[in-house]
Amino acid sequence: MTGTAIISDVAPRDGLQSIGPFVPTATKIALVRAIHAAGIRRMEIGSFVSPRAVPQMADTAEVLRAALELPGLECTVLVPNRRGFELARDSGAQRLGLFMSVTESHNKANLNRTREESFADLSAIAREATAAGLLVRFNLSCVFHCPFEGVVPDAEALDLIERVTAIDPSMEIALADTTGNAAPDQVRRICEQALRSWGERFAFHGHDTYGMGLANVAAAWDAGIRIFDSASGGLGGCPFAPGATGNVATEDVAWLFRRMGVETGIDWNRLLEAADLAAQVPGGTPGGRLRGVPAVRRAA
Amino acid sequence: MTGTAIISDVAPRDGLQSIGPFVPTATKIALVRAIHAAGIRRMEIGSFVSPRAVPQMADTAEVLRAALELPGLECTVLVPNRRGFELARDSGAQRLGLFMSVTESHNKANLNRTREESFADLSAIAREATAAGLLVRFNLSCVFHCPFEGVVPDAEALDLIERVTAIDPSMEIALADTTGNAAPDQVRRICEQALRSWGERFAFHGHDTYGMGLANVAAAWDAGIRIFDSASGGLGGCPFAPGATGNVATEDVAWLFRRMGVETGIDWNRLLEAADLAAQVPGGTPGGRLRGVPAVRRAA
Repeated sequence: MTGTAIISDVAPRDGLQSIGPFVPTATKIALVRAIHAAGIRRMEIGSFVSPRAVPQMADTAEVLRAALELPGLECTVLVPNRRGFELARDSGAQRLGLFMSVTESHNKANLNRTREESFADLSAIAREATAAGLLVRFNLSCVFHCPFEGVVPDAEALDLIERVTAIDPSMEIALADTTGNAAPDQVRRICEQALRSWGERFAFHGHDTYGMGLANVAAAWDAGIRIFDSASGGLGGCPFAPGATGNVATEDVAWLFRRMGVETGIDWNRLLEAADLAAQVPGGTPGGRLRGVPAVRRAA
Repeated sequence: MTGTAIISDVAPRDGLQSIGPFVPTATKIALVRAIHAAGIRRMEIGSFVSPRAVPQMADTAEVLRAALELPGLECTVLVPNRRGFELARDSGAQRLGLFMSVTESHNKANLNRTREESFADLSAIAREATAAGLLVRFNLSCVFHCPFEGVVPDAEALDLIERVTAIDPSMEIALADTTGNAAPDQVRRICEQALRSWGERFAFHGHDTYGMGLANVAAAWDAGIRIFDSASGGLGGCPFAPGATGNVATEDVAWLFRRMGVETGIDWNRLLEAADLAAQVPGGTPGGRLRGVPAVRRAA
């Protein structure tokens, strides 16, 4: 059961995005540095979206410049469309994050377009980005459960996953439990089938809204997934998915892996510092379970 | 992955035991009735211990009398020793709960005696109780992790499990994650080995201290365990295991099983009522994740 897991901390983007009051750029940079100091070598730094639509991400270029100075860190920036891609292409970010939903109604609510429109645009961007030497992460939201449509049928998820795998053989694909209401048996089943059919290129992105976050991470690990998204301090949530508060906390995931003997390269003391910093961001809705456990503090 | 899980709600005993202020007998009985009304048909009602040692359980006989009036409910009472057994034998409780620890230091801290002393006494009581027509549950604490000794070696746990299986072939045995720091791969491994070696007679008793409660329940289910302890409202904890606050919440476990298509016979609306009632007990330390999720309230 041992091995190595790669944790991509999404607190700077997914964690901060839905916070109302603007988080000062210096605070964002301090958070990025703290997460890096904890030994995490992948991070979702921000997104090149319209500052009118998501004002919290208006300073992504500046945060990214600071992040790119950190040794060994792979920076991901999210882009919703061609305009974002053009901004991101020359930003220095090593990886582009694209995203769309498995379900039509969430795609429309979140992106204001049909899945076919999203897929066509993102496929073209993914190919161009890859040709330009960028790494690409294709994020699929609502793979397991949708706030509007409920439980997603396996076939609906696997159909879209298959189409996405065909865009480029090297492209990483994240299977996201956007609402936190995936069941561990479902996560295991879909992840196993994806890995068996299309190889080791999948990541799992989980939320902890229903307390099943770690159960789903454990199920994804068992299925063979080795790349996990999580947010220090359990920050996050999707403003367009009602009730979908809180990415699974990096410190919770790190503890799970520590107890399972899985390597993450994380410095536990410093991760708790990063988690505390994330949890203290004004306006944030921190989650996670580990920060408050006395025995964990002592174990550091 | 479907099937049926039996949930034994331990809120009336494990959940209330460590609460300082005495919980009025009427409140305890109301809680038992609410949990029963939610469709739960096994419950840990109280314990026949010295009222000096555990004053909160002084009214177990009275609570039990009320519980025994509820149709279809199997009542468990915990007994620490022969004196408790004698009280319990004629109390009307269908099942006796015995308990000791896998680790020497926790057994001494919790029971003030060596494992060998506990094992000898409890073996004799278990045989007498079985001969008297009572059902017996033998609870093993710290099967996976001990607050004093850390991670428990598999062999140490399995050795004691094997000795306990030999007491009586029909006796139910609970594998308890007393500190909540079991890892899901460890739970799966031990449960699988126990079931493979000694048949379908095991229950899993989990805590949620480190947020791994549901991950461990899911792992135990995958391994083949079909009987689970949990506490409505996530009440509970062991006063002799530092940091071990909070049984895994019945409502969280019920949601996990609901999403996995596992039958529990639970009425979701009424379970939320029971959980709210448990969480409101003055002096209690409620846990669990589900009570506060708006989508869960709507799903009821």
